[in-house]
Amino acid sequence: MTYSVAVSGASGYAGGEILRLLAGHPDIEIRTVTAHSNAGQPLIEHQPHLRSLAHLTLQDTTPAILAGHDIVFLALPHGQSGQYTDALGDTPLVIDAGADHRLTSQDAWDAFYGGAFHEPWSYGVPELLVDGTKQRSHLVGARRIAAPGCNASTVSLSLAPGVAAGVIDPSDIVAVLAVGPSGAGKSAKTNLLASEILGSANPYAVGGTHRHIPEIRQALAAASGAADDRIRISFTPVLVPMSRGILATVTAPIVEGTSDAQIRAAWQDAYGDETFVQLLPEGHFPRTADVLGANTALMGLAIDRAANRVTIVTAVDNLVKGTAGAAVQSMNIALGLPEGTALSTNGVAP
Amino acid sequence: MTYSVAVSGASGYAGGEILRLLAGHPDIEIRTVTAHSNAGQPLIEHQPHLRSLAHLTLQDTTPAILAGHDIVFLALPHGQSGQYTDALGDTPLVIDAGADHRLTSQDAWDAFYGGAFHEPWSYGVPELLVDGTKQRSHLVGARRIAAPGCNASTVSLSLAPGVAAGVIDPSDIVAVLAVGPSGAGKSAKTNLLASEILGSANPYAVGGTHRHIPEIRQALAAASGAADDRIRISFTPVLVPMSRGILATVTAPIVEGTSDAQIRAAWQDAYGDETFVQLLPEGHFPRTADVLGANTALMGLAIDRAANRVTIVTAVDNLVKGTAGAAVQSMNIALGLPEGTALSTNGVAP
Amino acid sequence: MTYSVAVSGASGYAGGEILRLLAGHPDIEIRTVTAHSNAGQPLIEHQPHLRSLAHLTLQDTTPAILAGHDIVFLALPHGQSGQYTDALGDTPLVIDAGADHRLTSQDAWDAFYGGAFHEPWSYGVPELLVDGTKQRSHLVGARRIAAPGCNASTVSLSLAPGVAAGVIDPSDIVAVLAVGPSGAGKSAKTNLLASEILGSANPYAVGGTHRHIPEIRQALAAASGAADDRIRISFTPVLVPMSRGILATVTAPIVEGTSDAQIRAAWQDAYGDETFVQLLPEGHFPRTADVLGANTALMGLAIDRAANRVTIVTAVDNLVKGTAGAAVQSMNIALGLPEGTALSTNGVAP
Amino acid sequence: MTYSVAVSGASGYAGGEILRLLAGHPDIEIRTVTAHSNAGQPLIEHQPHLRSLAHLTLQDTTPAILAGHDIVFLALPHGQSGQYTDALGDTPLVIDAGADHRLTSQDAWDAFYGGAFHEPWSYGVPELLVDGTKQRSHLVGARRIAAPGCNASTVSLSLAPGVAAGVIDPSDIVAVLAVGPSGAGKSAKTNLLASEILGSANPYAVGGTHRHIPEIRQALAAASGAADDRIRISFTPVLVPMSRGILATVTAPIVEGTSDAQIRAAWQDAYGDETFVQLLPEGHFPRTADVLGANTALMGLAIDRAANRVTIVTAVDNLVKGTAGAAVQSMNIALGLPEGTALSTNGVAP
Repeated sequence: MTYSVAVSGASGYAGGEILRLLAGHPDIEIRTVTAHSNAGQPLIEHQPHLRSLAHLTLQDTTPAILAGHDIVFLALPHGQSGQYTDALGDTPLVIDAGADHRLTSQDAWDAFYGGAFHEPWSYGVPELLVDGTKQRSHLVGARRIAAPGCNASTVSLSLAPGVAAGVIDPSDIVAVLAVGPSGAGKSAKTNLLASEILGSANPYAVGGTHRHIPEIRQALAAASGAADDRIRISFTPVLVPMSRGILATVTAPIVEGTSDAQIRAAWQDAYGDETFVQLLPEGHFPRTADVLGANTALMGLAIDRAANRVTIVTAVDNLVKGTAGAAVQSMNIALGLPEGTALSTNGVAP
Repeated sequence: MTYSVAVSGASGYAGGEILRLLAGHPDIEIRTVTAHSNAGQPLIEHQPHLRSLAHLTLQDTTPAILAGHDIVFLALPHGQSGQYTDALGDTPLVIDAGADHRLTSQDAWDAFYGGAFHEPWSYGVPELLVDGTKQRSHLVGARRIAAPGCNASTVSLSLAPGVAAGVIDPSDIVAVLAVGPSGAGKSAKTNLLASEILGSANPYAVGGTHRHIPEIRQALAAASGAADDRIRISFTPVLVPMSRGILATVTAPIVEGTSDAQIRAAWQDAYGDETFVQLLPEGHFPRTADVLGANTALMGLAIDRAANRVTIVTAVDNLVKGTAGAAVQSMNIALGLPEGTALSTNGVAP
Repeated sequence: MTYSVAVSGASGYAGGEILRLLAGHPDIEIRTVTAHSNAGQPLIEHQPHLRSLAHLTLQDTTPAILAGHDIVFLALPHGQSGQYTDALGDTPLVIDAGADHRLTSQDAWDAFYGGAFHEPWSYGVPELLVDGTKQRSHLVGARRIAAPGCNASTVSLSLAPGVAAGVIDPSDIVAVLAVGPSGAGKSAKTNLLASEILGSANPYAVGGTHRHIPEIRQALAAASGAADDRIRISFTPVLVPMSRGILATVTAPIVEGTSDAQIRAAWQDAYGDETFVQLLPEGHFPRTADVLGANTALMGLAIDRAANRVTIVTAVDNLVKGTAGAAVQSMNIALGLPEGTALSTNGVAP
Repeated sequence: MTYSVAVSGASGYAGGEILRLLAGHPDIEIRTVTAHSNAGQPLIEHQPHLRSLAHLTLQDTTPAILAGHDIVFLALPHGQSGQYTDALGDTPLVIDAGADHRLTSQDAWDAFYGGAFHEPWSYGVPELLVDGTKQRSHLVGARRIAAPGCNASTVSLSLAPGVAAGVIDPSDIVAVLAVGPSGAGKSAKTNLLASEILGSANPYAVGGTHRHIPEIRQALAAASGAADDRIRISFTPVLVPMSRGILATVTAPIVEGTSDAQIRAAWQDAYGDETFVQLLPEGHFPRTADVLGANTALMGLAIDRAANRVTIVTAVDNLVKGTAGAAVQSMNIALGLPEGTALSTNGVAP
């Protein structure tokens, strides 16, 4: 069976990446692509790399145009998904790449986003440990899926095995992420100009203000069974001059009395059978180039007894495993298709 | 008076940067430049950007050739300075850009470097707090100076005010640094090839193995009056695609009962009168581009009560404030010259 | 049927890209990977992005190890293929990514390469016009194929339609190429270090010395039916800070009396039906990001009457359409498989 | 004597670079900085690298505010200078970094710019050959100076010696330039976003439409004594991922009967005594990193007899020698100050 798909926000980076992946999916027909100010123009004017989709024209993003498909992807600025989701009641599967349906706590939403609160949907990170199982099980047959924040899922996947196994203490996490500017979207802002980013490392949202913080706390609370407020995280993203990629360096204190073997086993047990989340051998750490264009999260783990901390370094492509790949992988699970369809484990390097 | 200078390691990155700064110094005559395998070749073959030094030829790095100058700069791989320093006994001022004379603890040297241990020299970070004063006072009239490790001085300057004032706890520091590859030197290694670095973020020395760790612990112990072993640091450097620059994100726990005003005051008091170490206004954080080619360390401070941590983000040019600029600034102090001679506070941006 | 494959030079950039493409090919079993100094090590130590090939170990590059496969790819430094090709006489299909079997003229070989001259093989650029037909026809059933030089095929594809149609004059071609450093291979040379390439544009082989020049002249002579020595080209490559990609700006004089419509028609007629070589609409020009990881050559054409020149700007991924993709596409043709198997037209952007 | 200075457009890239250079000028007091939408804000909010100018506040760009200074720099979008120049009649020295006063031909202005035509001012490229002398002589005592277009002056300096000496034919010039995006200014456009530029080479203004073309034709006509319409140039700029820099590859046919020695002598004679325009030794070619932050144009020359063309490769920093450095150098000449005051020949590399 072939599923018909509409993708909104198709002229942006997340929308473009969803289309790039779906273009290689044998069970999908990309029928409709929509945008706002660019409606009426050929898709390829805005996504000149998507040669196989040169026949598509951007339409308006309206509920009427999005309705009537088997699957709708929403790749809109946060706060904009809600207006469409009501009108898509009959759509069998809706996947939101925005933030609107990620948080379960209205307080967290109000503190970090504001505006109307929307009901939480199934969280699109299949490998995430949740209450002793994997999030995958909650995605089977799901009709409404919230794709994750790219930084949030990277940090949550990095730590969930350790907090679930009780070998690290989630009350004093420190995460610093080197991130490419595509995560900030295709918006014409002076601080995102090439001249500002090239040859420079630029921090932003320093000091606990980044919107992905509550998403991490929620995920790690679910992984550990602890209350949300037991999870504390110092989170600093740094823009670096690569178009894509997240390299997260995440550390947490070692729980007293834990052996090195117990620590490594926590991650090995959690991810040993996974295709798209891989723990590298001891002493190895990943580079973002290794996952460029791939749906793979690569993870290296170091046990630093002098500092009494475990350090996890995780590389993902923010637009793939961080967003569009997570969305397509979740879609595959929801529909009962082979989970890796249209997704690559191999990166494009060098 | 004009001082005659010899610079060894003149075909490398640190040596080249020392020469770039000294070329603009009105009191310095660059008389001799030396190298190893490149001896006999014009300097400009290896430093094509140093147009004003096109008349210089690289000589052998031998004690005889280095002797007889007022000032000798050693920009050699670590472990190689020692063989020259004995023979330079009559040289009025020797400045080592290598690691050989930085550490006071032989145990630390043995654990992180190995090989012959050398006596510690005056540490070339003038603004660093040491036992209630500034390191500057120890550089006045100094005859032997150890320029700092670039990552080490960046982290030490970031935290010294807080540990000296007792507002942060140095026993659980986490530092993650985005660094440019020039810090690794001009050595032809596969992992430093442009194809490996472009478009990628590459961690290295993860888990407590980086050689700058004991240097940081030594500096912060001196700043705080605490014993060395009370300082614990999780330290992770990440290579990012910019030729120069360090952006250090450094966090430490807030000492209980400390007010926001007390925290900010610690840094403001320490650096308010400094030219080359500047605390940015609240809510502002620096970019490495802002200090490119400059001797300035720019610092932003956030107080994250939710994470119970202070976050300092500091930008330096690893080759200037991190190495060559620190060396020249220290030289100026040692000789009684105006401290900022030949050093710029303004970066080359964008 | 599944073909067994051996890839030599598997730890390098060209070999790695051949493997990345073959890993997604349904009719190929990658049985053997070989290297020189790295033999005995896991492939993934050298190609950490090829997660799906983590089970392979690098073997020695010897005729005995390469023999016995259905297909052998040689991704070796130029001058090294010859020693293997004799011993592979029984191998049904051998594809050389090196230069050894590209040139038909021993004089050209001697002038630009030197060393033993080898017989020319079928040239692996299917879309190239040759004597009124396409090179594709010469690849059907081929048993020995020479993959092209990346710069050479980019320039040849850019101009062949115009010289074949007689609308441009091939005696005064000027080509300037912005190229990524991966084309220079994974060799640890100082001038290829990230510190040397980042933030800089570096010309090389200026003034007519680049080895791809005779390959271009040969291809354009074949396209035009003219003698080789009627083709004259000023060729300058410039390394720029992107790991992959070639953006070739190629100009040639307009033949007197030719109309704009005739000029555009030459390219449109040549490539209008091609999948992997596409002429963009008037006024549009390609970016290398649009073909990253793709087997597509995108081409824009401008007619500059004031300068009396046609300007073609062509973007390719040097490792895909420039090398490995050309090799796999040619392999598909030789074997009678669908030509685009395992090759993407869509790039990975941004 | 100290000259008071006002800089308009001070929040942009050209304005910022003028300020960076003037901040190190011993004879200049930067009294006034102006902007449009950013008026009222501290300069350092927009130029965070200019630490020594932290005391300045951006004022409105009005004739009244600009008047009353010894020197006024205009760094405004083209077409905007004219409205101020009338009102600055009493200002001793006005230097326009925009295009408004560069062209002598109203036809050329109308064809490439349009809008009101303004009288030409002294062209701020001191080393340019003009009618058998250097442009420098026309700048002595000048009261109105037009700083050059960065690409234009780079190409003009590259070719002027050859056309003046009659060794190359200016009727078939081909120039392809790798340029950094800072030349396009600090305007928030989607195509200048870091995500679009990183890892990619992007051509623009292909086919003879770039506005610097008439400026080059005018300069080379003046250098050769030929009529403007005898100069024909194919000109293609390509954005590459470096914040600053121009690497121009410029070729022109060799005039028949010219010896290699005559060709090299043309450039050697023209630039042998110059500080800021340097011809490299035979076989050497420049990199843009070598002139980063410097006022130096470095030039390499190859004689390609097979292609019958001379190739000049020239590196400049577009914001220094291309714009702000040219302006300050011209100011120094106009005022009778040492020409190199506040200008560096040494680049910031790596």
